[in-house]
Amino acid sequence: MTLKSPVQHIQITKIIHYDVQSNPDLLAVEEPLEIRLEFGRLAERQQRSLSVTMRTPGHDFELALGFLFTEGIVRSVQQIDTIKYCLSTGKQEEFENVLRVELKPEIQLDFEKFQRNFYTSSSCGVCGKSSIDSVKMQCNPIQSNIKITSNSIHNLPQKLREAQHVFEHTGGLHASALFRPDGELIILREDVGRHNALDKVIGAMLSKGEVPLSDYVLLVSGRTSFELVQKAAMAGIPVMAAVGAPSSLAVELARETGMTLLGFVRGGSLNVYCGEQRISGV
Amino acid sequence: MTLKSPVQHIQITKIIHYDVQSNPDLLAVEEPLEIRLEFGRLAERQQRSLSVTMRTPGHDFELALGFLFTEGIVRSVQQIDTIKYCLSTGKQEEFENVLRVELKPEIQLDFEKFQRNFYTSSSCGVCGKSSIDSVKMQCNPIQSNIKITSNSIHNLPQKLREAQHVFEHTGGLHASALFRPDGELIILREDVGRHNALDKVIGAMLSKGEVPLSDYVLLVSGRTSFELVQKAAMAGIPVMAAVGAPSSLAVELARETGMTLLGFVRGGSLNVYCGEQRISGV
Repeated sequence: MTLKSPVQHIQITKIIHYDVQSNPDLLAVEEPLEIRLEFGRLAERQQRSLSVTMRTPGHDFELALGFLFTEGIVRSVQQIDTIKYCLSTGKQEEFENVLRVELKPEIQLDFEKFQRNFYTSSSCGVCGKSSIDSVKMQCNPIQSNIKITSNSIHNLPQKLREAQHVFEHTGGLHASALFRPDGELIILREDVGRHNALDKVIGAMLSKGEVPLSDYVLLVSGRTSFELVQKAAMAGIPVMAAVGAPSSLAVELARETGMTLLGFVRGGSLNVYCGEQRISGV
Repeated sequence: MTLKSPVQHIQITKIIHYDVQSNPDLLAVEEPLEIRLEFGRLAERQQRSLSVTMRTPGHDFELALGFLFTEGIVRSVQQIDTIKYCLSTGKQEEFENVLRVELKPEIQLDFEKFQRNFYTSSSCGVCGKSSIDSVKMQCNPIQSNIKITSNSIHNLPQKLREAQHVFEHTGGLHASALFRPDGELIILREDVGRHNALDKVIGAMLSKGEVPLSDYVLLVSGRTSFELVQKAAMAGIPVMAAVGAPSSLAVELARETGMTLLGFVRGGSLNVYCGEQRISGV
């Protein structure tokens, strides 16, 4: 569906110690994606610009769907009428960079409320408390009895790396992947933005009717922030593992929602920050 | 000045192959920082919430100053009257998480205009073009005749790592550092957000009256995004190096502004994406 490529060819100068060469190279593409929302009853439809995110083209509809869901704007794919690229922007290079999500007419939406929910964002009030509290979005407690062995977890990063096709060429992409507890890879998405990679995974599963993701293990390629745990919790993911470190607030939110949070999963070692009961034998 | 710590002690379960231990560990702290702006003539002062960003506590005033400058909201430190923590938020744990920047009364500010400049943000218009164009902020062409040897660049990552005190303990922080062309480290800042680490560096130099940073080389610990190049360009940094990969838009913006952009600076090798004239012998 997407015409844009996730990689771009470029000629670079490579310097190895004192040796200077001109080499072809590949870059991970980063371009803005504006998500517009059309909503309201038929007689009073409105269109508003919801967000502009820097993303790697590809799976844009899944990204939009996942973003709307993990930010709490839609509760199911059934609330959405259509998602399409806007064709009216004129400039050739902007095609596929503006996307319109049309909600069903019966869906009520308090647009102003959601405007406050994006951090590093321009919230309008003078009340600091409400701005900061809005960051801590409501997440339901995780409901899942899955168990996974530590041996199965140790093997996940290798499977992730083998499936990361774009990273292989550019070294420039974050990845998010869902696995079954036995280690079977279900879906992997890559993006220059780690939150986008996760939104793409969740959006894809949402469009298959598979959310909440109570039977899956999530692995992310980098570090774990509050934002990533929030998105995973919104999708009901019971076990979240990362190759890198979590932040303090990531651990706090994982505990609050009852998620199992793992970090530094590499080289046969891993840290369990909370939710040990889902690791067999611990 | 900051009372909050950048690290948090925690007890974790460590699993090495099949061996399970309970170990003390350190996390990089992530907490929201709301920046409020007070502006306008004395008779009509307004206070507005500008942004909420997830950051590691420490150097908060530098972060705010750097953010305001790199987003084009203030042009110099002289436009700012005071920066202080808000004490009125009530809750103990929110102290030092809300900060007020008071602009001098004579500074004119079109607040609505800046509201649109934050991406992953809630812009209000229906015009996609303006939202996307607003991402490409005006950056002046880089003015600098500095030269640096490839040998000097090869040594920067090791110096960065040695000076990264919090990362050493948590593995969870991005770093930004400025060096002189001869390799002398001038300043290093760490944060869970890579854009925050850079804003802290730029804010610190701004408060010393050292911007534009025409004589310095910037090294960032991770990958280079459009946003990071934009911030570096706003501060007039002529050479930007990264341990990781740049994105396509990072390279495009670096070219447009006349910056030297380097990536994959590791193990005696580096890639030059543009601005080769500032590397001696290339």
